Amino acid sequence: MIVEEFKRQAAETAVTAIQSGMVVGLGTGSTAVFAVRALGKLLQDGRLHTIVAIPTSEATAREAERVGIPLTTLDQHPLIDVGIDGADEITPTLDLIKGLGGALLREKIITLATKRFIVIADSSKKVPRLGIRAPLPVEVIPFARQPVHDYLVSLGARPVLRARQGQPFITDEGNIILDCHFDNGIPDPLWLAQAIKQRPGVVEHGLFLGLAQTAVIAGTTGIELLGQPL
Amino acid sequence: MIVEEFKRQAAETAVTAIQSGMVVGLGTGSTAVFAVRALGKLLQDGRLHTIVAIPTSEATAREAERVGIPLTTLDQHPLIDVGIDGADEITPTLDLIKGLGGALLREKIITLATKRFIVIADSSKKVPRLGIRAPLPVEVIPFARQPVHDYLVSLGARPVLRARQGQPFITDEGNIILDCHFDNGIPDPLWLAQAIKQRPGVVEHGLFLGLAQTAVIAGTTGIELLGQPL
Repeated sequence: MIVEEFKRQAAETAVTAIQSGMVVGLGTGSTAVFAVRALGKLLQDGRLHTIVAIPTSEATAREAERVGIPLTTLDQHPLIDVGIDGADEITPTLDLIKGLGGALLREKIITLATKRFIVIADSSKKVPRLGIRAPLPVEVIPFARQPVHDYLVSLGARPVLRARQGQPFITDEGNIILDCHFDNGIPDPLWLAQAIKQRPGVVEHGLFLGLAQTAVIAGTTGIELLGQPL
Repeated sequence: MIVEEFKRQAAETAVTAIQSGMVVGLGTGSTAVFAVRALGKLLQDGRLHTIVAIPTSEATAREAERVGIPLTTLDQHPLIDVGIDGADEITPTLDLIKGLGGALLREKIITLATKRFIVIADSSKKVPRLGIRAPLPVEVIPFARQPVHDYLVSLGARPVLRARQGQPFITDEGNIILDCHFDNGIPDPLWLAQAIKQRPGVVEHGLFLGLAQTAVIAGTTGIELLGQPL
């Protein structure tokens, strides 16, 4: 799979921004896992030391432990030096849709606590504007599924309950995901982000606006850097 | 306890607004429980029939079942005719602080789906402005406790983790509560409500602004009605 190779290249480029002594945020998903493994290898090789990391999901915590990355919590380390995570869509101004991996809530909490957030992706994730390629995931309290569904429709979305093996997908926090499709993309992401989050029963959504400082994107033409240098 | 008598009087007055065939929202807490019992009695006496009710907590669900009120869900009945619930503070314009009972999230989801929300209280809950008498509860994902705490401090609050028997109090949705104290009340509740809810890791808060249509308040001088008539 050539796409897997692009994901690995982006991840291995991004981890060069990590220095010994740092607190690192670890993302979730098929791209972020390459960053976890690359960081584990740098620690095993002795090229980095005294790193502690905060994982954005139970799955990432297990993978980090497997490759020997010491873990910590936001309670112990409320400020993160560098965070590395994937995205489902990336615009030229580094606005993102995230959450296909199912961990958008912890990912956003971590990102808010991060001084420098580096998003990594293969080039298929580049979009001219948000909502064209990927649905927007909205994490919802199960109790509020029906009213929040109807509210999202009133905002112009087509919400689809995320399922896995015929059952509703359940997040690490015990919530459901409504994947919101938009016929012609999202016209005003900032307005939509506020309108969705204000609604009782909504826990979080996958719009990450103005949060990424750097994007590392790998494709057939090589590695492209957007935003601040590594 | 004379205060208990006032709570009972307010509850028994409010349930007169319920008519046969209605979908009813049932609140949580020491005042709302009197409304649950009063509704149960009206059903047992045959003065009301074909009622279905949606409870705002597991505790209220158990009490409703005990007194013979048939329960339903928001999925089955997305629109509620009348909701009755207590509050910790009530202003003259019917803005509320709720959540001392620990069920503010489901209470707010239910209230948003309610055509007519009646708040019931003893007269000690009346305040000239919000945040004077009661702390403002904020329901938070446990993972985000420290960053949300620091954010609430930046908004002028003194957040205190709600505890029960020496352990963090856990809501029906598995979250923690930060009770926010304000030295001179809340200057701008609408602004504060939006600022708190926007923060990743915040699930909901106890500000109920513009949501109640009627207040039934019982005290030494009798029963007072605010807002729309019953």
